[in-house]
Amino acid sequence: MSANRIFETDLHQSEANFTQLSPISFIARSAHTYPDRCSIIHGTKRYSWRETYQRCRRLASALRNRGITPGETVAIMGANTPEMYEAAFGVPMAGLVLNTLNVRLDAANIAFCLNHGEAKILLTDREFSSTVKDALALLDHPIVVIDIMDSEYSGSGEVVGTTDYESFLLEGNPDYAWTLPEDEWQAISLNYTSGTTGDPKGVVYHHRGAYLNAMSNIVGWNMAHHPIYLWTLPMFHCNGWCFPWSIAAVGGTNVCLRQVNAAHIYAAIGDHGVTHFCGAPIVLNFVINASPEERRDFSHQVNVMTAAAPPPAQTLQRMQEQGFNVTHVYGLTETYGPAVICAWHPEWNDLTIEQQTAKKSRQGVRYHALEGLSVRDPETMKPVPADGETMGEVMFKGNVVMKGYLKNRDTTEAALAGGWFHSGDLGVIEPDGYIKLKDRSKDVIISGGENISSIEVEDTLHKHPAIMFAAVVAKPDDKWGETPCAFVELMADAGAVTEPEIIAFCRDNLAHFKCPRQVIFGTLPKTSTGKIQKFKLREQIIGRAHQ
Amino acid sequence: MSANRIFETDLHQSEANFTQLSPISFIARSAHTYPDRCSIIHGTKRYSWRETYQRCRRLASALRNRGITPGETVAIMGANTPEMYEAAFGVPMAGLVLNTLNVRLDAANIAFCLNHGEAKILLTDREFSSTVKDALALLDHPIVVIDIMDSEYSGSGEVVGTTDYESFLLEGNPDYAWTLPEDEWQAISLNYTSGTTGDPKGVVYHHRGAYLNAMSNIVGWNMAHHPIYLWTLPMFHCNGWCFPWSIAAVGGTNVCLRQVNAAHIYAAIGDHGVTHFCGAPIVLNFVINASPEERRDFSHQVNVMTAAAPPPAQTLQRMQEQGFNVTHVYGLTETYGPAVICAWHPEWNDLTIEQQTAKKSRQGVRYHALEGLSVRDPETMKPVPADGETMGEVMFKGNVVMKGYLKNRDTTEAALAGGWFHSGDLGVIEPDGYIKLKDRSKDVIISGGENISSIEVEDTLHKHPAIMFAAVVAKPDDKWGETPCAFVELMADAGAVTEPEIIAFCRDNLAHFKCPRQVIFGTLPKTSTGKIQKFKLREQIIGRAHQ
Repeated sequence: MSANRIFETDLHQSEANFTQLSPISFIARSAHTYPDRCSIIHGTKRYSWRETYQRCRRLASALRNRGITPGETVAIMGANTPEMYEAAFGVPMAGLVLNTLNVRLDAANIAFCLNHGEAKILLTDREFSSTVKDALALLDHPIVVIDIMDSEYSGSGEVVGTTDYESFLLEGNPDYAWTLPEDEWQAISLNYTSGTTGDPKGVVYHHRGAYLNAMSNIVGWNMAHHPIYLWTLPMFHCNGWCFPWSIAAVGGTNVCLRQVNAAHIYAAIGDHGVTHFCGAPIVLNFVINASPEERRDFSHQVNVMTAAAPPPAQTLQRMQEQGFNVTHVYGLTETYGPAVICAWHPEWNDLTIEQQTAKKSRQGVRYHALEGLSVRDPETMKPVPADGETMGEVMFKGNVVMKGYLKNRDTTEAALAGGWFHSGDLGVIEPDGYIKLKDRSKDVIISGGENISSIEVEDTLHKHPAIMFAAVVAKPDDKWGETPCAFVELMADAGAVTEPEIIAFCRDNLAHFKCPRQVIFGTLPKTSTGKIQKFKLREQIIGRAHQ
Repeated sequence: MSANRIFETDLHQSEANFTQLSPISFIARSAHTYPDRCSIIHGTKRYSWRETYQRCRRLASALRNRGITPGETVAIMGANTPEMYEAAFGVPMAGLVLNTLNVRLDAANIAFCLNHGEAKILLTDREFSSTVKDALALLDHPIVVIDIMDSEYSGSGEVVGTTDYESFLLEGNPDYAWTLPEDEWQAISLNYTSGTTGDPKGVVYHHRGAYLNAMSNIVGWNMAHHPIYLWTLPMFHCNGWCFPWSIAAVGGTNVCLRQVNAAHIYAAIGDHGVTHFCGAPIVLNFVINASPEERRDFSHQVNVMTAAAPPPAQTLQRMQEQGFNVTHVYGLTETYGPAVICAWHPEWNDLTIEQQTAKKSRQGVRYHALEGLSVRDPETMKPVPADGETMGEVMFKGNVVMKGYLKNRDTTEAALAGGWFHSGDLGVIEPDGYIKLKDRSKDVIISGGENISSIEVEDTLHKHPAIMFAAVVAKPDDKWGETPCAFVELMADAGAVTEPEIIAFCRDNLAHFKCPRQVIFGTLPKTSTGKIQKFKLREQIIGRAHQ
């Protein structure tokens, strides 16, 4: 212990000088400061910050009126609508934990999440009623179901609950006196990872981490006050990377979007002056491959944050050529979404666009709220040298690493062993200290004893003008152990392309041992967030190998 | 207690998912991310972030090598030089508490601070050696004195210590393995308030508050990455409003400045492309009253944050007319500097410049890191109505309220009573929720039972074209109790102006009972930060009254 005596005497925490950190605080501030400013645009609907805050307070109050008590779970099966946004504040305002469900999951998986997370109330959009209805039949406990009847949704679906959302809000008090959590370490949300195998794991976030990552989004992305933020990223995904809270902090406008496609994105840019949006590379591909009729001119700066996958270099380059300012981030559900950013150096603007893309396709450096980012040998826990060559496992530490996996002590302990969160991603540290992902541990291809980064091969494939999406997985091989097998999805307007042509293209651009031995054409299976589901491709390969 | 069970089981804090908040973290990040970027400009000196970080680590290491232990105090008597900046990181990196001394204090007051704060080491700039030498003779404990020999200082002064700063740094290790505080509530700095009466009070800041206010400066001021920040605000004042830490967080460049005047400010804007500076209205007055020879053209946006006093509306208006983008903030030493901001509404840009100035001269709303800002009746603790009329005491709560006053339990408890920090400032809440200061409690003038805001009278006086500075204090009056007495300092080029003229000008613009009955001409006494020392004027009034 220290000799820190005089500064620890009679200098206690009190209500005046200590407050629990929580992003709820941001909406209270914006409602006070900018009450008449537009908070949400959804079709023809407009809400002000005063209204959104009142609706969130109503929601919190209505939830508590139904007898649900602090620390219990409220689930939501929703599209990117105002109700989803309101849940990000209204649920924690009531001291409850928000579980945003991945709407692409099937009924069995949804039921698993509701049972495992012990959700007491479910808010569900009519679009997903079919899945939800089946899931409800599998529940092991009673649940109150509230239907979100979005006027912007005209598709099929039925009422599966007992109350509609707007009536439910009327049960609540718009002046509800919410309180901050008793402890900022308390859970704010529960996000199930769409695991490639086994049951989903429930990642728990706390108020402190949500507050800090929301602030880091703003500072890291240079986000000025009053952004017009388009919801291309699902809010169910890592709580929309904490952006519901960031946008409230800077008094921005949320442009909701039920269905992500090129026409809708360009319309939002043209009609509402969208300044920011986030998304997986699939969203960027929509944008760069838009038809002339879908496109809209814009003269203001549009900032795009992208992550996952990692994005093919070609995608980054084409976005930039089309006038978008792309920031590349990286993170996992376990790190509140983005926790690593390819922090830009102004002098890089003088490089060629290819050189800029090479810089930008790296994952980068830690977010402000992340304390440590490292690439280590998972056995020895020693950091790899910053040589851009030596692979190790990417590891994180800090306040934006999850509280842990719900009801899963062993997995939590394993994930957080040795003082670091083990991401399962493989990468290198480049000489300038920026990290670059090489692969998921399980995605690396070991051929003749040599490691092949599937990402590197995919990056090469994406440079081929006919290829829209590419994924490379290991194919068992008697001689080499494994060899790379490429799955490619062609552009709509691509002519005939043959397997030998693709392989030849790779051999012109890659070390020969890294080139695919086989190319399979077709539509690639993707998750709701645009990640290609390699495990399905792997199953297909194994299936073929066993034929 | 809550039923919060599943989310509190097996989800503990660990080294992987919990880090103490501290602004030290920011410099480590910038040194890693932008090692070659310019951190500090001082005369012909240039440092990179790599170098500044190394120098800070050397400082931390050298301090610990001298046997000083965590929780002890290091004082610095310095100008706005690189050494001052380094102390903001190097001292807390060593687990020590930084006491930046107000260089305008006399030897007795400096000795009081060093004794009361129990400083073990003093870093002192040669410019202040005369005061320091006298202060050292008054110390009640041994102290190690290190001389800062700034090559940019060519004035008088002598060596008063045993080691010069550069040699001291060489005692330290540039790779020193500093650690975060054991607890973010631990003290990071000690700032004595330049009290108007009695001994200075030692305001204690903690790492958590410093981190949060540094982030709030960035988010509140819309500060993009890589600002060029000019040090017009003394770093000894509330740790430079936490801006040493903010600038590190955004990888900016600190332009040091030993002597603040119009020529130096414009030179820094012209030569270095300064984008941001802070200062009291006196700094703004330097700028707007600069001579043609002192001025430099600039085409980029220069952002100015101002506080204290509050700034006369005329000053704000003239700054804006001269192309500066002024943000008005408000706070006290007890709130880490700025904790309230006149958050701008984009639609206000359509108002006339006079209307804009009227909006901007209000103090505004809470900073992001401040949880509560209120105007209350200090007796009942009830908030005043938001009518713009009812006065109350401005009160603060949140993580950027001080830990307390050092070794001063009673005063701390009184200041933080009832869950709020009592500022001693009087204000109103306007109908839009923005607060507007009316006066210091002790500055309000009560005449015939009516409260007169000295600020309102001063604002009127500042509109007079011949008046540079004005201060209004209460003069004892047998009939009215008190009447306003004005002290005015005229512009250098002002012609002859008489007392009746000034009073007539006020009567044209103010309710008559608020007008000064007496006007005294002369140079006004000011603190080092440009605040007019009203207590001296009050003494003068009392002196005259007793004559």
